[in-house]
Amino acid sequence: MATIISIPSPADFHVHLRQGKIASIVTPHVRKGGFTLAYVMPNLKPPITSTAQALAYKAELEAIDPTVEYLMTLYLSPDLTPEEIVKAKEAGIVGVKSYPRGVTTNSDGGIESYEMYYPVFEAMQRVDMVLNLHGEVPSDAKTNTHIINAEPQFLPHLHSLHEAFPKLRIVLEHATTRAAVEAVKACGPTVACTITAHHLSLTVDDWAGQSFNFCKPVAKFPDDREALRQVIREGHPRFFLGSDSAPHPFHSKSTSTPSQGCAAGIYTSPILLPLVAHLLESFDALDKLEGFTSTFGRRFYRREVSTEGAEKIALHKVDKYVIQEQYGDGEETVSPFWAGKELGWQIVY
Amino acid sequence: MATIISIPSPADFHVHLRQGKIASIVTPHVRKGGFTLAYVMPNLKPPITSTAQALAYKAELEAIDPTVEYLMTLYLSPDLTPEEIVKAKEAGIVGVKSYPRGVTTNSDGGIESYEMYYPVFEAMQRVDMVLNLHGEVPSDAKTNTHIINAEPQFLPHLHSLHEAFPKLRIVLEHATTRAAVEAVKACGPTVACTITAHHLSLTVDDWAGQSFNFCKPVAKFPDDREALRQVIREGHPRFFLGSDSAPHPFHSKSTSTPSQGCAAGIYTSPILLPLVAHLLESFDALDKLEGFTSTFGRRFYRREVSTEGAEKIALHKVDKYVIQEQYGDGEETVSPFWAGKELGWQIVY
Repeated sequence: MATIISIPSPADFHVHLRQGKIASIVTPHVRKGGFTLAYVMPNLKPPITSTAQALAYKAELEAIDPTVEYLMTLYLSPDLTPEEIVKAKEAGIVGVKSYPRGVTTNSDGGIESYEMYYPVFEAMQRVDMVLNLHGEVPSDAKTNTHIINAEPQFLPHLHSLHEAFPKLRIVLEHATTRAAVEAVKACGPTVACTITAHHLSLTVDDWAGQSFNFCKPVAKFPDDREALRQVIREGHPRFFLGSDSAPHPFHSKSTSTPSQGCAAGIYTSPILLPLVAHLLESFDALDKLEGFTSTFGRRFYRREVSTEGAEKIALHKVDKYVIQEQYGDGEETVSPFWAGKELGWQIVY
Repeated sequence: MATIISIPSPADFHVHLRQGKIASIVTPHVRKGGFTLAYVMPNLKPPITSTAQALAYKAELEAIDPTVEYLMTLYLSPDLTPEEIVKAKEAGIVGVKSYPRGVTTNSDGGIESYEMYYPVFEAMQRVDMVLNLHGEVPSDAKTNTHIINAEPQFLPHLHSLHEAFPKLRIVLEHATTRAAVEAVKACGPTVACTITAHHLSLTVDDWAGQSFNFCKPVAKFPDDREALRQVIREGHPRFFLGSDSAPHPFHSKSTSTPSQGCAAGIYTSPILLPLVAHLLESFDALDKLEGFTSTFGRRFYRREVSTEGAEKIALHKVDKYVIQEQYGDGEETVSPFWAGKELGWQIVY
């Protein structure tokens, strides 16, 4: 039984670092949580839709913590042109993120309007950028579409995109269902999938009546969770960690007004590598920790590190310790996932 | 278009009236909400398991508001004997309520242990008492049982019970799925079904991240909600209102601690008849209001009222008004369903 594990340059391929004061609190948590690379989501206010914005945002993050490598993304919107894609690629921007809401807002027929983005995807395929998909369709009572089947109903779009752009690297983000795992497996080597830490832990029973466990996509059923765990146990190289760590102020996560729902999102950054180790150990996949949190994602994103180039992050098996209840203060207080619960692994700084 | 509707002696065939100070706040809300009969749940602390307890509880409720007829129930537990059933029947107690948790706690094999209660059910069938089923099996990750499929997985037990005791009147409480509606329809005339007001409004999307909309059974999918609405539109006489109105203190409904979930339950008593009218109108079933809230349930429970004997409750179509945010104060503050939202019907007192 291992009591020390060293992971070479762990990489989180999906993280929200926000802006302003909350960014100054959460950005250092990437490294605190054991990660040397952050693939940064572009859903700011306003969203990151141009190369210039992405570079300015990257500089802002580097000013907060220069020890982490930030890979930047653009927000897919009708403003994005093939010309901007070429410019973005030259500037080192890695991917473009598609959100279902953006698609809905700018189309009559819902998500079918991916076709309006085909010239952009064509350019992305040519210059070798990555398309990151939030794989859910919007809820619609008339078609019995809801937060539980939103991901399975999206999967035909994944297949269409893959077929139309077979060389375009696509990542289905934060998969939560057996159907999604099977869909990605059925695709070719250009399609990968991120899995969050919290979806390895939660099921629908855990977020019912507990808004701190509420995120999108929502955690599904035990059998879906088992499919996520199983594909990690298999060591499938196209499935790797993207935490979707999403800090929200405490007051927007608690529900104290009956007429107002809480923000969707779970915050895992500050405890991420110990948490993933703890979870993988719980379902007999600790031997896949390096692949899941470093090698597989880095290979897909062409960010492999040599043995010499890797910064090793060491985890020690420890007596269980309690996860801190919150970080920050006042309006910027954030609570991590599993606050007050116990972990059995700790980073040696 | 009707602008005044009179309902003869509306009856709520599933309501939680609690005990102590909160009972003194919520019990008068039965009549405030337009109802003259309350079928009272026995899940107090300790639960109502004997005739003596039920009669004492009834006296307590009558002392708070003597203008409502209270039909009393016992809590199914291993302590309940066939002899006690006979005694209960003689004392005017109407039903026995089965909760899944009680079943789980007192059996190894889960809900299969209904068979241990067969002597009690036999006595109930003989003396003509009603069995009220909370129709969910407990969640179990190993069998992929969770809060979404808990009700469909219970339905084979309904069929077994109905087959074993064809003359026993059984009510499947607070149905939430198309499967449940179809199961009850497929049974004989001794099996009925209650439907709450809130399940005619909510789907899974509404309680995700909003603990005030969280109840058990959880609201399901749009297609399930449509099945509930459709069976009311049909005017099916074995489907009638049981509000499952369940007051919880405000602080136990809001989620302000990440490690602690909120109480399951939605409180509709004070606005019940206007709310049901508003909802039925929204899906073109206003002409079934009398059947759904009075006639059908009363007939099944043999509590029919003659035209002369009925107390008419009049609803007026009004300009929309805002539902009160809360009732009570301090530790006993409770928020009603749809707090701050608008209704288009009002009781004329």
